[in-house]
Amino acid sequence: MAANAFGTLFTVTTFGESHGPAIGCVVDGCPPGLAIAPEDFRADLDRRATGRSRHTSQRREADEVEILSGVYEGRTTGTPIGLLIRNTDARSKDYRELTETFRPGHADYTYWHKYGIRDPRGGGRSSARETTMRVAAAVIAKKWLAERYGVRVRGHLAQIGALVPRRFDWDAVEDNPFFWPDPDMVAELEGYVDALRKAGDSVGARVTVVADGVPVGWGEPVYGKLDAELASALMSINAVKGVEIGAGFAAVAQTGTQHRDEITPEGFLSNHAGGILGGIASGQPVVASIALKPTSSILVPGRSVNLAGEPVQVRTIGRHDPCVGIRATPIAEAMVALVLIDQALRHRAQCGDVGEVAPRVPGSRA
Amino acid sequence: MAANAFGTLFTVTTFGESHGPAIGCVVDGCPPGLAIAPEDFRADLDRRATGRSRHTSQRREADEVEILSGVYEGRTTGTPIGLLIRNTDARSKDYRELTETFRPGHADYTYWHKYGIRDPRGGGRSSARETTMRVAAAVIAKKWLAERYGVRVRGHLAQIGALVPRRFDWDAVEDNPFFWPDPDMVAELEGYVDALRKAGDSVGARVTVVADGVPVGWGEPVYGKLDAELASALMSINAVKGVEIGAGFAAVAQTGTQHRDEITPEGFLSNHAGGILGGIASGQPVVASIALKPTSSILVPGRSVNLAGEPVQVRTIGRHDPCVGIRATPIAEAMVALVLIDQALRHRAQCGDVGEVAPRVPGSRA
Amino acid sequence: MAANAFGTLFTVTTFGESHGPAIGCVVDGCPPGLAIAPEDFRADLDRRATGRSRHTSQRREADEVEILSGVYEGRTTGTPIGLLIRNTDARSKDYRELTETFRPGHADYTYWHKYGIRDPRGGGRSSARETTMRVAAAVIAKKWLAERYGVRVRGHLAQIGALVPRRFDWDAVEDNPFFWPDPDMVAELEGYVDALRKAGDSVGARVTVVADGVPVGWGEPVYGKLDAELASALMSINAVKGVEIGAGFAAVAQTGTQHRDEITPEGFLSNHAGGILGGIASGQPVVASIALKPTSSILVPGRSVNLAGEPVQVRTIGRHDPCVGIRATPIAEAMVALVLIDQALRHRAQCGDVGEVAPRVPGSRA
Amino acid sequence: MAANAFGTLFTVTTFGESHGPAIGCVVDGCPPGLAIAPEDFRADLDRRATGRSRHTSQRREADEVEILSGVYEGRTTGTPIGLLIRNTDARSKDYRELTETFRPGHADYTYWHKYGIRDPRGGGRSSARETTMRVAAAVIAKKWLAERYGVRVRGHLAQIGALVPRRFDWDAVEDNPFFWPDPDMVAELEGYVDALRKAGDSVGARVTVVADGVPVGWGEPVYGKLDAELASALMSINAVKGVEIGAGFAAVAQTGTQHRDEITPEGFLSNHAGGILGGIASGQPVVASIALKPTSSILVPGRSVNLAGEPVQVRTIGRHDPCVGIRATPIAEAMVALVLIDQALRHRAQCGDVGEVAPRVPGSRA
Repeated sequence: MAANAFGTLFTVTTFGESHGPAIGCVVDGCPPGLAIAPEDFRADLDRRATGRSRHTSQRREADEVEILSGVYEGRTTGTPIGLLIRNTDARSKDYRELTETFRPGHADYTYWHKYGIRDPRGGGRSSARETTMRVAAAVIAKKWLAERYGVRVRGHLAQIGALVPRRFDWDAVEDNPFFWPDPDMVAELEGYVDALRKAGDSVGARVTVVADGVPVGWGEPVYGKLDAELASALMSINAVKGVEIGAGFAAVAQTGTQHRDEITPEGFLSNHAGGILGGIASGQPVVASIALKPTSSILVPGRSVNLAGEPVQVRTIGRHDPCVGIRATPIAEAMVALVLIDQALRHRAQCGDVGEVAPRVPGSRA
Repeated sequence: MAANAFGTLFTVTTFGESHGPAIGCVVDGCPPGLAIAPEDFRADLDRRATGRSRHTSQRREADEVEILSGVYEGRTTGTPIGLLIRNTDARSKDYRELTETFRPGHADYTYWHKYGIRDPRGGGRSSARETTMRVAAAVIAKKWLAERYGVRVRGHLAQIGALVPRRFDWDAVEDNPFFWPDPDMVAELEGYVDALRKAGDSVGARVTVVADGVPVGWGEPVYGKLDAELASALMSINAVKGVEIGAGFAAVAQTGTQHRDEITPEGFLSNHAGGILGGIASGQPVVASIALKPTSSILVPGRSVNLAGEPVQVRTIGRHDPCVGIRATPIAEAMVALVLIDQALRHRAQCGDVGEVAPRVPGSRA
Repeated sequence: MAANAFGTLFTVTTFGESHGPAIGCVVDGCPPGLAIAPEDFRADLDRRATGRSRHTSQRREADEVEILSGVYEGRTTGTPIGLLIRNTDARSKDYRELTETFRPGHADYTYWHKYGIRDPRGGGRSSARETTMRVAAAVIAKKWLAERYGVRVRGHLAQIGALVPRRFDWDAVEDNPFFWPDPDMVAELEGYVDALRKAGDSVGARVTVVADGVPVGWGEPVYGKLDAELASALMSINAVKGVEIGAGFAAVAQTGTQHRDEITPEGFLSNHAGGILGGIASGQPVVASIALKPTSSILVPGRSVNLAGEPVQVRTIGRHDPCVGIRATPIAEAMVALVLIDQALRHRAQCGDVGEVAPRVPGSRA
Repeated sequence: MAANAFGTLFTVTTFGESHGPAIGCVVDGCPPGLAIAPEDFRADLDRRATGRSRHTSQRREADEVEILSGVYEGRTTGTPIGLLIRNTDARSKDYRELTETFRPGHADYTYWHKYGIRDPRGGGRSSARETTMRVAAAVIAKKWLAERYGVRVRGHLAQIGALVPRRFDWDAVEDNPFFWPDPDMVAELEGYVDALRKAGDSVGARVTVVADGVPVGWGEPVYGKLDAELASALMSINAVKGVEIGAGFAAVAQTGTQHRDEITPEGFLSNHAGGILGGIASGQPVVASIALKPTSSILVPGRSVNLAGEPVQVRTIGRHDPCVGIRATPIAEAMVALVLIDQALRHRAQCGDVGEVAPRVPGSRA
């Protein structure tokens, strides 16, 4: 499998550097007949874009998606869908001095050692710019999942630094620039992030994604488990250091009587499993969370070395996010959607459509 | 990619049910010339085996590995290595009553809905029995990684319930049945697990794996990142609900100045990254941790439904582990080793051998 | 993709050397619920086996298939199916003198240069013995294709040396040891092959496989075309040097007016395309032919070199076939069946079941 | 594996329809450090382009390649290389009447049945236009193969209709619009093709590709054999109906004494094997040939049906080639080069660089 391709049957192959001429992707394996138009991409790309508020990088990403192929008279044809976004506001001069220096906590050091060459402009390929195409590809996936199976994938910020929501309201999530589910805390968050930015520092975050309506049966044991693929997908997002399904690390301190989700004819009594048992969806909401590290691109100088191995001070003065986790919500949703559509197609391949080989247990509402 | 195959270039395809005639695997892509003998498998299979102490399932796994192919006169030939273990102590009668009932927290429910049929004997394919072949395959991987690159992969239990080690000693890990790094706490653990077993309950655990000697450069952006593949590999282990690389979820509350690992000519000053930057190994130890849920196979009765959707009480009386995390250490090591050898081969394919395209930065000891 | 695995969704991973303890395979991705029993394998394995008549190698292949997993109470469960055949009549002593010598026209030379080591016993991994597992795996594929879609895959010898059938009768094919469709020529063939064997020489052959009932729509443009996958599958059979679809090389001298298969409401008027247009099945019979070279394992001495590069005379005195093409018919059928089931599952994944996205053109019987 | 991606380690994912806004591809897995500039693509794209002489389609393909990513300061960085060509001279009106009609011998019929929708403009995705990106991607592959291993891949037309070269001169091949190796026959060919075009008919062709300098050892048994992958690659080219390696179908009538290539300390005495034994390169030139059918897009009317299943007359009046085989030479070379680079990387992954595990047999010049 090529390292820049994601998925087995619904594959997304991305290309492009942060400050190159363009980024793009090829979506292969999309079912035919799905209505797709350039404006479908607008909402999610805006949610992911920098420059949306003062709390994210001030790089302006216009992000106009051009559909190059695979759509005829507004419908997918089953052939590969080429998507392209031209890079516009790419100020490479900001990064020039970093060519010979490795920024601590960055991929500069490892890309150089791996390839012997790297594109230093804006992080090149290791930039979060690449995730734009994940979001674009997932627009197609989300739409198909919703139309065909009623699956809805949505996420929210669940923690930033030490702050956690005190109450939860899905409706609030899209009403603030933080994807924060507690509307009463938005002013507090603004103050917190402003202070961080002024201090030239950054902070980590936690994002949770919930997929409702996932049919029981999706997921493939034993290495293609739904949770294993979610873990890979989510860990592949820049800055992610941890992935949890359902109870996640809280399960370490639970007993079996606490953790197991008992079943009644009215459905499961809890969802510590996060909607997945044995790698297969149980019919409950699929719940995944990720930990994002604080970006290393900060104003506070740090110690590093240059190509000659000599000690240097590094201070990143480009346009960066004080908390990369803020914009990670649509990206995490995208990866969950891409995993789900892939599993949907794989299930259909081996077992036929949902419910074909086994009727749902009567009464159980899962 | 087949769901029961792991890896891209060093692939492991497993088969077998818990109580079928045998389990086995095919290891494909192994470099030729590696010395392998049946006795090489003994140590790690024993570490993983049940019945080793009173703290794990009392099923006796003799686990004699037969090498069916791919080795000639004691050396790998580059052709696929077939490995086979006959199932011996498989008491299917223990499980018969569960055929029509779904155990809460188990894969019974989801396998049935996915496939419309399931092998109920001992959990069938969803049993941890399958992980035996992962450990066997990883014996080959570990040996090649050690001989060719000096890579060492080892793990330990890092938490069980609320208990965490008070001090850390690698040498202690293999001297107790818990893989516990604090020798002073072994008696405490024994009492804790005995009490759980008597109560008919179970508990979760945390396991940490460390790989030393991983060369800078292994790992493939952007979807084949070393951490993404570790996440998938580790999450594919039965009962795992969370994966962390380096600081993991602790990164959520860290600032950039705290988290970034500064570099000096003498090497990195910390390892919050867990040895991975931008998906590529940095040359520091690779550190990954997993959360394992408490097994749902417990004596305490729980509510569930049967095939007809009617409410039933379920009580699992087979031979089970009070903490599946105890035996998970060699399995987690195995998955890390399988990821590393695959990345090693992929790196060699694209970039030549370690250090071929880029010399190590002088002075930096990583 | 591992080199010893075939297929994308219905994958077959084989292992085993000609004279090792066993050969086997793992079939992954099989739809659940298919009835499979050990006796299902008997007919096709017998058709492929050596020692069936004096016209093939006198090695006796008992070839008892053991089903190790993936089948519960006589039905496939959707989990991987492990199949095993112990090697019994393996006389390694015949081959011992060849360890230091390269047989002309054999894989000895290339395996040694590739791997630096090779199992010389009976050709090791390069032996046609490996194809036994292809035939075994294809028994499952053929059964599912027949039961679910009414697809029938069958083949025949179409040429041996300069001999071609003068008339064609499917019913005759299974009534002679040559899979020859002209019953009047069987005695002639027997004399021809007897003479070859006495002369210590061998000859090439041509085999044709026809798949009836393949639904219009199977096949994936542009690199996963049905014909591209058939070409790969058939060329991967030992000794195959050429593959044709439909008219094949005869198309070189045809004009467009001759070659194109015109369509009427009653169906296509010819089938030069061999049932495939643009890489997708047209609904006509799928027709593929292969050229098999004469085996190089012959009694007539030939010039070669040894490991030291010195000239040697080589004479192969093991038990070999005067025409490997004779037994190739069930192997070629197997590969066609494996390609078809894989394409069937892939079609179902992307487009739903046959006919779901597009009704058949009315009237056209294809 | 996605159906529009080719290769395992050096992968090429193409997208684009004949008359859509653009065609393009993503090349993933390219070794870093290779010098690549836009002008490198010129020569091979011109060789493939239509409109080069009166003997090919009069569509003018300017085919300016834009490098969108993966190259920094003129060298590959190891990240995916995005290539884009805008479609310019696309006259969709020529094709409009074909929307409701299936052209005999074309993919119209099968695309429609597979997907329930098709882009009728210029054949959409099934057009040979797609092969432009194969040629572009292969420019990179050819360059790396030549620079690193001295491999040269070149092809020629070997037959058109009943005409075969009477003598062979590599130097002549690039001096005529037919890639014909016999300079004395060029006038004859011109007359032949002119006559065909005037008759509104077309004819088939045979193309042969030879790769010199392929190191012994490349190729992966048993399903990833070098010849199996060549067969798939070449059969995936539009209009190809047959593939031969070395002697190909001529091997059917050969005896073992004729076919086997004897070896002496000075090298092989013949090359009926086409440079491949047991799926692995022998060090001799790799020789592959293909049969191309006569295009079905001809002026002579043919019988077909429309969407309603009613009989219609079809006459193709777009700009088409009287012999699509003429332009197939660079496409066939491209596919051979893509197979070789992929096998080169895979060999390096498992066995290290060429010659690492086994020195060449002394004296034998292969």
